[in-house]
Amino acid sequence: MSTQSHFPTPDAAPLYMRLAHAIERQITSGALREGDRLPSIRRLQREQGVSVSTILQAYFWLENRGCIEAKPQSGFYVRPPYPRSPREPEFRRTTSKPTELGMSKLLVEVVGAATKAENVALAVSTLRPDMFPNTKLNQIFRKTMQRVPHHNGIYELPPGHAALRRQIARRSLTLGCSFSPDDILITCGGMEGLNLGLRAVAKAGDVVAIESPTYFGVLQVIESLGMKAIEIPTYPRDGMCLDALEAAITKHNVKAVLSMSNGHNPLGLVLSDVRKRDLVELTNRHDVPIIEDDVYGDITYSDTRPKVLRAFDRKDLVITVSSFSKILGGGLRVGWMEAARFRQAVSELKFINTLASPTLQQMVVAEFIECGGYERNLRRMRTTLSDQMHHMRQAIARFMPEETRVSNPGGGYSLWVELPKHVDAMDLYHRALDLKIGVLPGPIFSATRNFNNFIRLSCGHPLTPDVERALQTLGRLCE
Amino acid sequence: MSTQSHFPTPDAAPLYMRLAHAIERQITSGALREGDRLPSIRRLQREQGVSVSTILQAYFWLENRGCIEAKPQSGFYVRPPYPRSPREPEFRRTTSKPTELGMSKLLVEVVGAATKAENVALAVSTLRPDMFPNTKLNQIFRKTMQRVPHHNGIYELPPGHAALRRQIARRSLTLGCSFSPDDILITCGGMEGLNLGLRAVAKAGDVVAIESPTYFGVLQVIESLGMKAIEIPTYPRDGMCLDALEAAITKHNVKAVLSMSNGHNPLGLVLSDVRKRDLVELTNRHDVPIIEDDVYGDITYSDTRPKVLRAFDRKDLVITVSSFSKILGGGLRVGWMEAARFRQAVSELKFINTLASPTLQQMVVAEFIECGGYERNLRRMRTTLSDQMHHMRQAIARFMPEETRVSNPGGGYSLWVELPKHVDAMDLYHRALDLKIGVLPGPIFSATRNFNNFIRLSCGHPLTPDVERALQTLGRLCE
Repeated sequence: MSTQSHFPTPDAAPLYMRLAHAIERQITSGALREGDRLPSIRRLQREQGVSVSTILQAYFWLENRGCIEAKPQSGFYVRPPYPRSPREPEFRRTTSKPTELGMSKLLVEVVGAATKAENVALAVSTLRPDMFPNTKLNQIFRKTMQRVPHHNGIYELPPGHAALRRQIARRSLTLGCSFSPDDILITCGGMEGLNLGLRAVAKAGDVVAIESPTYFGVLQVIESLGMKAIEIPTYPRDGMCLDALEAAITKHNVKAVLSMSNGHNPLGLVLSDVRKRDLVELTNRHDVPIIEDDVYGDITYSDTRPKVLRAFDRKDLVITVSSFSKILGGGLRVGWMEAARFRQAVSELKFINTLASPTLQQMVVAEFIECGGYERNLRRMRTTLSDQMHHMRQAIARFMPEETRVSNPGGGYSLWVELPKHVDAMDLYHRALDLKIGVLPGPIFSATRNFNNFIRLSCGHPLTPDVERALQTLGRLCE
Repeated sequence: MSTQSHFPTPDAAPLYMRLAHAIERQITSGALREGDRLPSIRRLQREQGVSVSTILQAYFWLENRGCIEAKPQSGFYVRPPYPRSPREPEFRRTTSKPTELGMSKLLVEVVGAATKAENVALAVSTLRPDMFPNTKLNQIFRKTMQRVPHHNGIYELPPGHAALRRQIARRSLTLGCSFSPDDILITCGGMEGLNLGLRAVAKAGDVVAIESPTYFGVLQVIESLGMKAIEIPTYPRDGMCLDALEAAITKHNVKAVLSMSNGHNPLGLVLSDVRKRDLVELTNRHDVPIIEDDVYGDITYSDTRPKVLRAFDRKDLVITVSSFSKILGGGLRVGWMEAARFRQAVSELKFINTLASPTLQQMVVAEFIECGGYERNLRRMRTTLSDQMHHMRQAIARFMPEETRVSNPGGGYSLWVELPKHVDAMDLYHRALDLKIGVLPGPIFSATRNFNNFIRLSCGHPLTPDVERALQTLGRLCE
């Protein structure tokens, strides 16, 4: 069972959650053991002074996570733990030479095939479409069309729709920043933000430092712009190895650092504030810009939204790229960025890249945030996804080979899975595909095609029997 | 008065239009002269065997164009022609050296200021938002949301929404091509198409041949990608000077030719099929790709949709970039491209540039074309815009200095205006701006800041008294 104890439960969390975490800690510490009966609801009510419904909520939450089980007419009991709790993947050193990438073809092939497989749930880094707040969003769509019937005739030229920029600026306090609406540029999703950011700070031939492993899209963007990548070995919990990063900066005239410090894809890590500060201080010292990909920043499993790197920036050198794709749906094509001293440059680049983002969607997202729907939706999604993540980790522990290690994400919905040394991930990918199961092999997450015995599994879809069967099949293929 | 005689009226045109054109020809040939009374409706009905309503439609159309006027109780009379019919601008030779552009800042400033002026109608190359088929589009928006409530959760990854690609492929016959749905890639407007096309065929440092004058956005894209531009002098009616183009190709290893042969911005020219064939044959012979910007292709003032350059391509080397922005509204962000042998490359670039275009809008446009609304709308818009164009040319003849020349566009909604030699367009731009009038100066349409005494005037907005006054002021500023 995963403890998640690296996420302190802040006082702002709902009461039932604090109660649930307290009980969970008793289980992980051994104070409560397998088969123990939990305090009765009446007793807890008396001793803790909380309502029956709060206690029930806490117990149901723990039940959902597989920690306890209800026995009819008897009460709640601590469940037997799974035979083993999966360990996390090991840190891996990588070579540290700038690499001309030449893997776009491979990536397009692999990602294309994997995300078109019949059983696609494990491969895609998207949620099931019905997990988004569709009813509410469509209400706002209709209302907005009534209010602005000629929306399609309005170009929202850079920096984009003012009301949306205002809402994003208002929310920036929870990211540890204080943006003004004028600081914000609306983009067509996070992918465009990455492009504009990179084009603003570097040019063809320049060297860009990336995390290893990293999101394959980053590799493609760097390659398409004719830049070189240098991989910085990255700790599963602590992010980039800063010594290696500093060495790379000193030696290779690095023009930008790409980082995903909140809900890293594929590692799932959420960098601590201390590590974030260290990273930014290092790059500030060398006057190297950071481009932070924060598209998963709102999907983290703690109750507070983690800060962005920009919060620690003292030299106006950190670009934040974010998006609503992961929370409201990628079909909207609404992302945003805050580009520090490169604000003017990215705004000009946006103008000539796509001119504008879709008008109606910008208006809708602005309204959704303003009416409070966005924050409510975030709370709901964090719980759902945290549960899905938990169930998927348990299923991996159940179905995959004994030595398998799996990340314990603080955000996002990717699990980074280290398979036994003998497993070749590319081979596994091909054999799974023959059985119509999509899975992404480790090497596509590295400029040097490292991570031969790793795969990324998504838990953006619920663990249905189909998905469970797919996982069982993967486990068999690994033997 | 403009004759438009370079557009033969095909048999497919509505009867009233053929009748109107026949009468218009009588006026321009002198068969009917100022003050002459037109045949009575009764007589025309008897002689031509057409209905009263057809004749009235024809007369109203001619009245609208200022050719004839109704006198109460008396009938229709040929109006006095405007004192002079504006001549078209002169062909201008330009230097023919590859130029590193460095004008992004200027462009952003000038275009930004001009399109934010209070009186903006003359500056923007967009239609007034209420000229789009908004009611019908919003109906389809609502219907689509009902049918696919989770549209926002669907990524339409490259090549994009299948139903839309099917509709575009079906329409391709009217463009002189026969595309399959698989040939089409959906983009975020025409601007993204230009980017992807250029990135697919050339890289930083490469030389790209462009028309002179050309749309300033093209200059910005080329500059942002670190490419060089070579300007090819362009005839107001016949397009690029092919000798100059061939010399440039031979001498400078040109990697791509950018052309806007249907409704050129700012020239308004629609290239004849013969000239199109010559252009493509020349570039085919040298194996140089063409990127055709066809965003105005559907807005031409003939009754047949002109062919795209791709129709004459025998080597799979012509990329077509088009968009629905000019016809259904730029807020939709739906464009498309067909990239000949570069299909795979642009598809990969689209993936890493913006991943996808907005889902809902793709579904809506597909439905709008399928139900026939798109073609109906085109017919309506062509008439409206042709009228606006006509009125604007007349107003220019009335208010601008005597020696002023103005293009006689076959498509688009830009007028290219050559002012007396002593007028400095940048100076005029600044002085107009002081009076809150936006106007785009000639030099921003050239890599070498040529066209000092030219301005571009838009007729995307109707000629309201406000716009007329603005024009009058411009005329005064020129003296």
